[in-house]
Amino acid sequence: MSNAQNPARARRSESSRQAILTATRALISEVGYKTVSIEAIAARAGVGKQTIYRWWPSKGAVIFDSFLALSADVDGQGMALPDTGDIESDLKLVMRATVTEFADPDFERPIRALNTEIINDPDLATQFHEKLARPVDEAKKARLRSAQQAGQLATDADLDLVLEVLYAPLFQRWLHRSGPLTAEYADCLVDITLRAFGP
Amino acid sequence: MSNAQNPARARRSESSRQAILTATRALISEVGYKTVSIEAIAARAGVGKQTIYRWWPSKGAVIFDSFLALSADVDGQGMALPDTGDIESDLKLVMRATVTEFADPDFERPIRALNTEIINDPDLATQFHEKLARPVDEAKKARLRSAQQAGQLATDADLDLVLEVLYAPLFQRWLHRSGPLTAEYADCLVDITLRAFGP
Repeated sequence: MSNAQNPARARRSESSRQAILTATRALISEVGYKTVSIEAIAARAGVGKQTIYRWWPSKGAVIFDSFLALSADVDGQGMALPDTGDIESDLKLVMRATVTEFADPDFERPIRALNTEIINDPDLATQFHEKLARPVDEAKKARLRSAQQAGQLATDADLDLVLEVLYAPLFQRWLHRSGPLTAEYADCLVDITLRAFGP
Repeated sequence: MSNAQNPARARRSESSRQAILTATRALISEVGYKTVSIEAIAARAGVGKQTIYRWWPSKGAVIFDSFLALSADVDGQGMALPDTGDIESDLKLVMRATVTEFADPDFERPIRALNTEIINDPDLATQFHEKLARPVDEAKKARLRSAQQAGQLATDADLDLVLEVLYAPLFQRWLHRSGPLTAEYADCLVDITLRAFGP
């Protein structure tokens, strides 16, 4: 890539890429997954359509990257969970951060819009799980395996089920707006999960 | 009511009422909550609009009754959970039945459509919780209280949280189609919940 020899151009490219991802999330919130178009994303981001097609082969691809950007650090390496050796405090840190994000309208609105599409479109649900949810779940399961090795979780615990018990109550409460999303709730879900799957 | 003196008329009324509720659920599956109209429900059920307005004051009211009919016996008294004295086998019976229902396309389709509306409409979410979810949850909590008195659940367990841990993983798995809905899964959720909230 010629950008390696041209830092100013690389910065402009990264700035355009971020503008496109931000515009994509905003438009999905406003008009929904089916209605959003590459033309509209380009117009909102202030770039040409060809700039988008240079980096992404399809609308679906840019949409997934726009959501992936929410769960990864800017360098794309940020999915690993903290590992201080104490699974309880590490999970509480992560769950409190998750609860804070889902209580933030700017963060949760596009994810709510994406969920609306996913629940009515089995193909999109499959794509979502393969490209987005599974890599994040694998990072979480790596931390849970470390807890199993440390004797803090049952060695025969089904780690997919551990993640369901930890996250699904928060998911349902957020999606149905059926209760407060607080740090206390985050802690409580961790305590319950560790009790259910403790050694 | 004159129906008390006229059994044939009472049967015709009940048959019309059921036709209206069935038509309502079918139309919500097909066109969504916002688009469905009293006119369309009447046409599908083969009754006049005035028949619907005789029993229900609004579109929202007939929609809620159409979903309430799924969770209650025909006499409207069917919400109580079984109580054999063994919370584990009673909950497994209920959760296996729930999993079977949600694995049935004819049952789950209108509920998926209702969820789509609920997650994007906070007022509808509030109505749903007050009129539909809360009465069902209270019936479930009555069974859990009986288990607390029998020493099978911790006396200080937060029963709303018990229900979230028991049902939310199934809700998420169903909504996202992220895993199989089986009797084994139902049993597993009961085992985990009882371990998490055991005495």
